Amino acid sequence: MVNFLSIFTMRNLFFLSLALNLSLIMRVFYEGEKHGPHGLSARKADSGLEKAAHATQRTLVSLSSSGQDDGEKLINLDHGDPTMYESYWQQMGEKTTVVIPGWQSMSYFSDVKNPCWFLEPEFAKQVVRLHNLVGNAVTEGRQIVVGTGSSQLFLAALYALAPKDASEPISVISAAPFYSSYPSMTDYLKSGLYKWAGDARSFDKEGPYIELVTSPNNPDGFVRHSMVNRTGGILVHDLAYYWPQYTPISSATDHDLTLFTVSKSTGHAGTRIGWALVKDPEVAKKMIKFIELSTIGVSRDSQLRAARILEVIINSSQNPGRPESGESFFKISHHLMAERWQLLREAVNRGRFFSLPEFQQGFCQFLNQVSQPQPAFAWLKCEDESVEDCESLLRDHKILTRGGRSFGVGPKYIRVSMLDRDHNFNLFLKRLASIQT
Amino acid sequence: MVNFLSIFTMRNLFFLSLALNLSLIMRVFYEGEKHGPHGLSARKADSGLEKAAHATQRTLVSLSSSGQDDGEKLINLDHGDPTMYESYWQQMGEKTTVVIPGWQSMSYFSDVKNPCWFLEPEFAKQVVRLHNLVGNAVTEGRQIVVGTGSSQLFLAALYALAPKDASEPISVISAAPFYSSYPSMTDYLKSGLYKWAGDARSFDKEGPYIELVTSPNNPDGFVRHSMVNRTGGILVHDLAYYWPQYTPISSATDHDLTLFTVSKSTGHAGTRIGWALVKDPEVAKKMIKFIELSTIGVSRDSQLRAARILEVIINSSQNPGRPESGESFFKISHHLMAERWQLLREAVNRGRFFSLPEFQQGFCQFLNQVSQPQPAFAWLKCEDESVEDCESLLRDHKILTRGGRSFGVGPKYIRVSMLDRDHNFNLFLKRLASIQT
Repeated sequence: MVNFLSIFTMRNLFFLSLALNLSLIMRVFYEGEKHGPHGLSARKADSGLEKAAHATQRTLVSLSSSGQDDGEKLINLDHGDPTMYESYWQQMGEKTTVVIPGWQSMSYFSDVKNPCWFLEPEFAKQVVRLHNLVGNAVTEGRQIVVGTGSSQLFLAALYALAPKDASEPISVISAAPFYSSYPSMTDYLKSGLYKWAGDARSFDKEGPYIELVTSPNNPDGFVRHSMVNRTGGILVHDLAYYWPQYTPISSATDHDLTLFTVSKSTGHAGTRIGWALVKDPEVAKKMIKFIELSTIGVSRDSQLRAARILEVIINSSQNPGRPESGESFFKISHHLMAERWQLLREAVNRGRFFSLPEFQQGFCQFLNQVSQPQPAFAWLKCEDESVEDCESLLRDHKILTRGGRSFGVGPKYIRVSMLDRDHNFNLFLKRLASIQT
Repeated sequence: MVNFLSIFTMRNLFFLSLALNLSLIMRVFYEGEKHGPHGLSARKADSGLEKAAHATQRTLVSLSSSGQDDGEKLINLDHGDPTMYESYWQQMGEKTTVVIPGWQSMSYFSDVKNPCWFLEPEFAKQVVRLHNLVGNAVTEGRQIVVGTGSSQLFLAALYALAPKDASEPISVISAAPFYSSYPSMTDYLKSGLYKWAGDARSFDKEGPYIELVTSPNNPDGFVRHSMVNRTGGILVHDLAYYWPQYTPISSATDHDLTLFTVSKSTGHAGTRIGWALVKDPEVAKKMIKFIELSTIGVSRDSQLRAARILEVIINSSQNPGRPESGESFFKISHHLMAERWQLLREAVNRGRFFSLPEFQQGFCQFLNQVSQPQPAFAWLKCEDESVEDCESLLRDHKILTRGGRSFGVGPKYIRVSMLDRDHNFNLFLKRLASIQT
């Protein structure tokens, strides 16, 4: 903990203290699916750094020795369900609330003057503000296309980029380990426009192709660039995890077509809102057409909610600590992720059964400090020779994870969500420890 | 007007009076896209039936003689944008409002125990209550599948019903005039699973097929049944318009797979919520898979909002006129549509230039009265021999409509939205009259 803290300036200590308090409160008060207003009283908690840190550790120790885990509860870490963030949003209180009267946003149309006629202007405005603040993507000269999550935008991109009159479908590739849904999403409709062609590393077919570059990568968390880099290649950058809590923000990306989503940036997965930054207006137009044909636009309610959430995050970063803006979302989330990764590495390093990827630290322009990648998923490898199928092993301990085969590699690997609620994350750590003993 | 009124009982006269008041208030206060709280004061308006009716007519006369229409404003009646309903929802006030705190509905999952894991239980509950109340569909023994509008559910149905290992794509057909988006939605991804095969009336290919039955039909408003009725045929019933304001509710439908949407039932098009009632659990499972692969579920915010809206409609029908429940949505909407159709028929009958479909009246189980079909679209035919392309003619008068070719028939026909705001509808009537003189 001391090493980790040493990178914080004195100013940051104040925020860290509050972050630790939040973390503590989450552990003490949080009991599962149901939420109540009780979390709001947590603001009165003591904000002394050491006291909070010690209390946090006491809570963890108490959890691991109290017998709260009888090993029977199934923990689902298969999906990247970002419920970890609920506690931050509870703490933020009413400023995050959206109120939508019955007569509002009834029309199909959000903005008839925008080529993306279903894009809420307020959402577009906050997206630009957020990227300018975080510095993770250039927005100038881009068409913003909103989607029902970035999944829909991924499909819209394939539709927009695939030649319409080609003799055969264009190849879609990504370097293994790749996001497990890419193959099925590409092929489930047996489209004549595009077809999954597997691992980009072994792709040697002539002609045009679409390469999906996920950076930081899902599942393994590494920063990525195009693997093929050949004439006729079209790149789609999925930057769902290029946010300060997961990875150092080294520069503003400037790609042709980039995907983002609120699921991973703010934690609002149930809202189903993603956005694309698209350089070529003709490509954007085709993506818009895809969304028109598949869902006649994107929920305006959800866009309004997402706009509110992004605005709160921006305010919390610009004026952290003030009552009207609250504590910095990215600083608190970064701290929570750092803490979880530290705990996970400690648990893994207690034995030789598992290993984790090792990342290079980097300077984060947004946090203005050197920091470690701390991905939304842990890409665990079973090093033990007796284990062939790591997913099955974890399932025997009532932990659902996703095995390496889904990502185009072997069954020695599993992907584990790092974004679940504290209680489940702590049970996961405890069971991981028990497997190694 | 007197003929129309004679079908109302004394009890209904009270509601009609309020409906007319709403209609009047809408005309007087409504100015376009922007909404304000001013509409709320309208409740204080005089509710005398005759006074309101006369005032409504005065408003119309004043509009048509005041020169408010200089013929320059473009009126877009191409889409079925249901903005007509805004005024009802404004009148209903705060009871229609949803409030969503920042920490709510963050998880991907709405209900892990339901095969449709992204279905909000509250939304499902209100869907069942609404069908039971209106009597337009059997819900028992059905899986409810929620979708991002019924468009997504239409595509999900094609995916679910198409054989996965067939040597060629299954034919998708519908009797002309059919919904103009069916062909492009079916074919835009060049799926190997299904393929648009045109007008059901001329379909004579052997083997399995999917027939889309839209009833009442979009664009022409007629009640429909399967046209082909052959072995191997699978039916999808699109009942978006099977609601009391558009057509008499003759019985509770009991089909294998039925689609509904809030866009047309409540007017909340921007919310993008539809639902399917599916008899075969295996088909439902595949539809759920489709939605998982295309958008990882459906906006939870929008489902919560739709649930609230449906609940308000149910309360307004069960306890009409009480302050806590408001005026009956279906009665008021039915009246508004009746009024619009009467005005349209009067305008059309003033010349021989156009004609409209003639419908048979029927007994509406929900309204407990004989009533006329009064569709959400007017299917106008240009009877004048000098006009080849009716859509172009209307466009010359700055009215955007959709021409017959889009619906699989000739250019003498146009589809015109009957659901736009009062001001635009009245401009449309006025210009229609001017074409005929």
